Amino acid sequence: MSDERRRMAGGLDYRHGRIELWHGSGGRAMAQLIEELFETSFDNPFLARRNDQACFEVGAGRLVMTTDGFVIAPLFFPGGDIGCLAVHGTVNDIAMAGARPLYLAVAMIIEEGFPLADLKAIVASMAAAAKAAGVAIVTGDTKVVERGKGDGIFITTTGVGVVPAGVEISAERARPGDAVLLSGSIGDHGVAVLSKRESLAFETELLSDCASLHDLVARMVEAVPGIHAMRDPTRGGLAALLNEIAQQSGVGIALNEDAIPVAPAVRGACELLGLDPLYVANEGKLVAFCAAEDADRLLAVMRAHPLGRDAARIGTVVEDSRRFVQMQTGFGGHRIVDWLAGDQLPRIC
Amino acid sequence: MSDERRRMAGGLDYRHGRIELWHGSGGRAMAQLIEELFETSFDNPFLARRNDQACFEVGAGRLVMTTDGFVIAPLFFPGGDIGCLAVHGTVNDIAMAGARPLYLAVAMIIEEGFPLADLKAIVASMAAAAKAAGVAIVTGDTKVVERGKGDGIFITTTGVGVVPAGVEISAERARPGDAVLLSGSIGDHGVAVLSKRESLAFETELLSDCASLHDLVARMVEAVPGIHAMRDPTRGGLAALLNEIAQQSGVGIALNEDAIPVAPAVRGACELLGLDPLYVANEGKLVAFCAAEDADRLLAVMRAHPLGRDAARIGTVVEDSRRFVQMQTGFGGHRIVDWLAGDQLPRIC
Repeated sequence: MSDERRRMAGGLDYRHGRIELWHGSGGRAMAQLIEELFETSFDNPFLARRNDQACFEVGAGRLVMTTDGFVIAPLFFPGGDIGCLAVHGTVNDIAMAGARPLYLAVAMIIEEGFPLADLKAIVASMAAAAKAAGVAIVTGDTKVVERGKGDGIFITTTGVGVVPAGVEISAERARPGDAVLLSGSIGDHGVAVLSKRESLAFETELLSDCASLHDLVARMVEAVPGIHAMRDPTRGGLAALLNEIAQQSGVGIALNEDAIPVAPAVRGACELLGLDPLYVANEGKLVAFCAAEDADRLLAVMRAHPLGRDAARIGTVVEDSRRFVQMQTGFGGHRIVDWLAGDQLPRIC
Repeated sequence: MSDERRRMAGGLDYRHGRIELWHGSGGRAMAQLIEELFETSFDNPFLARRNDQACFEVGAGRLVMTTDGFVIAPLFFPGGDIGCLAVHGTVNDIAMAGARPLYLAVAMIIEEGFPLADLKAIVASMAAAAKAAGVAIVTGDTKVVERGKGDGIFITTTGVGVVPAGVEISAERARPGDAVLLSGSIGDHGVAVLSKRESLAFETELLSDCASLHDLVARMVEAVPGIHAMRDPTRGGLAALLNEIAQQSGVGIALNEDAIPVAPAVRGACELLGLDPLYVANEGKLVAFCAAEDADRLLAVMRAHPLGRDAARIGTVVEDSRRFVQMQTGFGGHRIVDWLAGDQLPRIC
C-alpha cells in the first residue's frame, strides 16, 4: 500500500488536514476531494456524472451568463464568508437582468496549506446558499498553487439564468424622468468586512447584508416587467453604480441625500474610518430605474419583500449631456457624486 | 485635475504601466482598463453593453457549461501562454461533450504590480484564440490582489456550448468492446512547460500542443454521432483520463504501449526528467471511446484533420470489475497503469 493510498484510505481529515499540491494535480487525491467534499456537499446529478462539463436542457429564449472572481479578505466576516458570497454575488448578477438563476459553475484556486476544515466550512456555506437560491452547482474545477503564491482561497463563480419574455433590463435604458429606487440601507457589507479586518469592535454588531436577491427581483419583474435598468452596488458602492448607468444611458442623475438609507451604526463606523457610505460595497442591495408612473407600484412590491423592507426612492434621472450624478445634500446644498477615486478598500468581494 | 485623472488622461501606459490595486476597485481606473483593453481586444456587442451579465438567444435543446481555472507557471511557454491556454482549455471541455462552443466568460485575478505589457499580450492571445474558435468572450470580471498574495495572473474561463441532437457523450458510457482512439502524440504540453520552467535547452524545440479541438470534434461527431465517451488528457495525463473513464463506466481498459504516439524529443526529455509520458499533461489531444464497428471510420476522420493527423487506436475496453487500466508493454509484458501518484507537476495548466 503506497503512502498516498494509506493516507486516503481513512477519508479526508478535516481536523488536521490541509490542502496539498497533489489535491490539484489530477490524480487520486483530487478525485477523493471531489468525491468526498464537493459531490457530497453540492449533491446533484449533473456533478455526479463526473464529466468535465455539465449538460442540461433549456427552452428556446434568452439566457444570461455572468462571472465573478471572489478574493475577499478575511474569508470569514460578520454575516457571511467567501462561500455564500460567491453564490450570492453571481445569483445577483443574473437577477439584475431580471433573469431567473438556473445553474452555477465554481472554480477554486486554493493555496497549499489551506486547512481542510476551512474549505469544508466554505463549501457548506456555498451549498446552503445555492440550495436557498434554488440553483445547482453543476460543474467545477480545483487548482492548487504553492504556499505564498495565493491567499487561502479564491473562488470564481459563473452562472446562467433565463430571462422572462418581455423583460429587457440593461444599463443603457435609463431615461430622463425615471425614478431611481434603492432596495435598502447602504454600506453594511463593506463596513462589516473592514471592522473584521481592522479588528474593530463596535457597540452594535455590524453584519454584511450579503444575500441572494433573485426572489425580490422575480416579484419586481412580475409587477413591473418594464423596469429599464437594474444593478447591485458592490465594489465602488452606490456612487460607482450611478455613474456607470449615467454613462451608459447618456443621462444625469439627481439624488436626494436624505432619502438614502444608512444604518446609524454604519454611519458611525464610516465617520470613524473616514469612509463615505456612497462608495462602500454592498452585497444584498439593488438599484432599479423605472418609468415615473411605475415607481410607486414597484416600491410597494419591494417594501413587501424582506430584502426590500427599507426600499426608498432616492432620486430621478435627468437630462444632462455631461452625465453627472448630483446630490442635494441634507443641508440644502448640491455636490457632484464622482466616480470612486483611486484609493478604495481592496478585496472587499 | 486629480492625480488619478491626470494619470488616466493619456490612456493606459503599456510600456511602463503596472496593475495597481485601484484597477480592481470598481472605480474609474477599472472602467478605463475594461474600456481600453478588454472591450477593444474582445470586441463584441455583448461586452460593449457593459452590463454585469451578457444576454443571448438560444434555441431549445441541450447546453453544456464548463469552467476551468488556469494557474500555469510560467505564464509564457513554448507554443503558447496562459491566455490562449485559457481559451483552448475551456473550448475543449465544451467540445468533449460533442458540443459546439458558443460563449465564454473570463474572470482574472491579477497581482498588484503585474506589467500592463504582459496583460496586453495575454489578452491579445485570448482574443486571437477565441476568434479562431468562433467563440465570443461576452462577459468578465477583474480582481486585483496585493503584491505577494497571487502570482502574476490567474484566469478562470467558463464556457457554454450547444449539443447537437442525438449526441450523448459521457464518461459512464464506455462499453466492453469499445475502441479507444487517441488523437495524437502525448506529453508535448507538460514537457514544453517544464523545459521552460527548468530552463532546459533541448536540441529540438519542444512546443506545447495547446489548441482548440472543437473543429476536429465537429467532424468526428458528424461522422459518428454515437461516440460513447470523450475527454482530453490534461492534468494527470492519459493515465488519469483512462482511469477516470474506467471508474465511471465500470470497465477495464487494455492498452497497447506500442500504439501510443510519443514524439522522440518528448520521450527523450521525459527520460531526462524522470517522467512517464502517460502522466504528463496535454492541451490539444483527445481520447474517444466508440463501438468497435465505428472505429475505422472515426479514425479516418480524425486522421484527415490537421489536429488528428497522428491519431491511433491505442486500446480496447474490456470487462473488469476491478476497473483496471492494463498495458501490454513493448517488451511483451503487462503492467497496471494506475492513477497518478501523489507527486506530479504542479501548475501545468
